[in-house]
Amino acid sequence: MANEAVDITEKLSLFSEHWSPKVIARLNDYEIKVVKVEGEFVWHTHDDTDELFIVVAGQLTIQLRDGGDVTLGAGQLFVVPRGVEHCPVADGEVHALLIEPTGVVNTN
Amino acid sequence: MANEAVDITEKLSLFSEHWSPKVIARLNDYEIKVVKVEGEFVWHTHDDTDELFIVVAGQLTIQLRDGGDVTLGAGQLFVVPRGVEHCPVADGEVHALLIEPTGVVNTN
Repeated sequence: MANEAVDITEKLSLFSEHWSPKVIARLNDYEIKVVKVEGEFVWHTHDDTDELFIVVAGQLTIQLRDGGDVTLGAGQLFVVPRGVEHCPVADGEVHALLIEPTGVVNTN
Repeated sequence: MANEAVDITEKLSLFSEHWSPKVIARLNDYEIKVVKVEGEFVWHTHDDTDELFIVVAGQLTIQLRDGGDVTLGAGQLFVVPRGVEHCPVADGEVHALLIEPTGVVNTN
């Protein structure tokens, strides 16, 4: 990827499966990923890291245990703080960027 | 910012000055910033960190010493690797997201 722009929409066009983030760039020990989601994920917590969601297309609701729901449209972002149990849910298909440290597993 | 979506365009609407990034969210020890730029910045290097640019509107060219130019349009991103001298330049106004560790100074 060196010395070349990374096009987010183009990267999203390369796959169709849901809940399967693809790394498109790296920032120090962080990964920038694109993901397509639809439906409800599982409730989970990242004990050691925050997690950044930036919605590119569609509408994503991040359910937060004890904290209500946060709904994101295109061009909106939210950071799920470490230790906060959450569950993303999308009525239709959502395209998003995820940024988190390398090695974070989807559901731990 | 807890439990509320952050709207990137709305945050960009709150200021007009160039080359003055504003923090809109935090991810562990990283800051997510919005910035408006126009014209040419100065050549500089971050010795200790990569720097992520995501262009929201306009066209940004990141000149890289010894590495050519990378031109980014809306929805495109680029990571300037640590230690690589670079100089952003924008013909017209550009709106962008920057992500880098807390405490990084614009021009060091």
